[in-house]
Amino acid sequence: MANKLYIVGLGPGGEGFMTAQARAALEAAEVLCGYTVYIDLVAHLFPEKETYTTPMRRELDRCRWALETAAGGRTVALVCSGDAGVYGMAGPALQLAAQWPDVEIEVVAGVTAALSGGAVLGAPLAHDFCVISLSDLLTPWEVIENRLRCAAMGDFSICLYNPASHKRKDYLQKACDILLAAGKDPETVCGYVRNIGRDGEEGKMVSLAQLRGAALDMFTTVFIGSSTTLCVSGRMVTPRGYERKQGPCA
Amino acid sequence: MANKLYIVGLGPGGEGFMTAQARAALEAAEVLCGYTVYIDLVAHLFPEKETYTTPMRRELDRCRWALETAAGGRTVALVCSGDAGVYGMAGPALQLAAQWPDVEIEVVAGVTAALSGGAVLGAPLAHDFCVISLSDLLTPWEVIENRLRCAAMGDFSICLYNPASHKRKDYLQKACDILLAAGKDPETVCGYVRNIGRDGEEGKMVSLAQLRGAALDMFTTVFIGSSTTLCVSGRMVTPRGYERKQGPCA
Repeated sequence: MANKLYIVGLGPGGEGFMTAQARAALEAAEVLCGYTVYIDLVAHLFPEKETYTTPMRRELDRCRWALETAAGGRTVALVCSGDAGVYGMAGPALQLAAQWPDVEIEVVAGVTAALSGGAVLGAPLAHDFCVISLSDLLTPWEVIENRLRCAAMGDFSICLYNPASHKRKDYLQKACDILLAAGKDPETVCGYVRNIGRDGEEGKMVSLAQLRGAALDMFTTVFIGSSTTLCVSGRMVTPRGYERKQGPCA
Repeated sequence: MANKLYIVGLGPGGEGFMTAQARAALEAAEVLCGYTVYIDLVAHLFPEKETYTTPMRRELDRCRWALETAAGGRTVALVCSGDAGVYGMAGPALQLAAQWPDVEIEVVAGVTAALSGGAVLGAPLAHDFCVISLSDLLTPWEVIENRLRCAAMGDFSICLYNPASHKRKDYLQKACDILLAAGKDPETVCGYVRNIGRDGEEGKMVSLAQLRGAALDMFTTVFIGSSTTLCVSGRMVTPRGYERKQGPCA
């Protein structure tokens, strides 16, 4: 019996962003399991494979099903968009896995939106950075607020996941207010990318003041520069400091 | 004339970690350019291609060569390990690119060590996290120190790049001391991974107190948990909080 569970990060969109390792894991699996939208991204590559999909907010059920099915002797791939770890299924699946000790688990990393969205804008995360989700579905808002404040105090570049949803229309505005109150310049170079790696991909650069007023949706990833982040020929770039040691960069 | 420059993140090691998009960019290029060690990782896949390598610490020269060669009408792929953006060549190349306005640049994201190393340990970055390089070659140490302190105050999971080198043997120890002084528990779940995706890959979990005394090298990526990070059946997992909404995780 196989008793093997792959937890696979697909990257942002279609098959072009998948690693060879991720693709091999999907090929090795007998069953593909995941949130409906992500299964749809890959199911056409493996039309003969069984799929098991669950809607949003049923993450633990999905993990349990994957573990139980693998424990029953089938090879399962539990898929996530982006990376398997970053806000993905590797966390909850590994927490639950103690109940199915015979299942061998392999986590397969993927390109998370901080990287794929960053590439669309330029190189916003080319120096130290933070990744923060604005969703308070699973995290108390005070924790998020404190992290935003600390990220500003540390002058990190910041990548925001889940900047908005139907129920959280004003969260991005609240986040920008916290960053501004913590001393970030309203002219800080920022950007956002919608539908990364999918049809309708769209990147835009704005100031922090403009970002505060932007109406974004849940398919958008937001980038907020550090104090050194630049707009260079329409791209967002956070310098690492080579110019200090190796002469001028521009 | 092509006038095209790809800046390509290769992922952590061999071809298995490369995305299809990265591989296609290398295929499309006439010349592969990069730091010798990274070119060696991929040159065997394209034995017919011309390569141009430069040693470490000649990053700007490498970028200029790539831009100039692309401006001359050849298609160039400038390769980086991990991601193209995160401490990679996309930043300096885009800063310099204004001098070669005819070159079309495409940044191709890759799996950075925070993700690939995280997958080896489990899911250490499954909630909000910071990425900080301990190298003060290009960054004043005070900036690094402040970011470490702010990362601790924000209770982020932290991924450290460049934890040590021949000249910086005690930097990891200094970093741990800053985190401990900022209030992090000496029992915080930590881990590190050496030679990610390459021969001799090795992951280990330790406490923050143990990490302080570890003798690591420059091929190692370090993970420091948040206050909620757990060791679950030998894996490092930062819970996202599903158990609060969907019942117990273990």
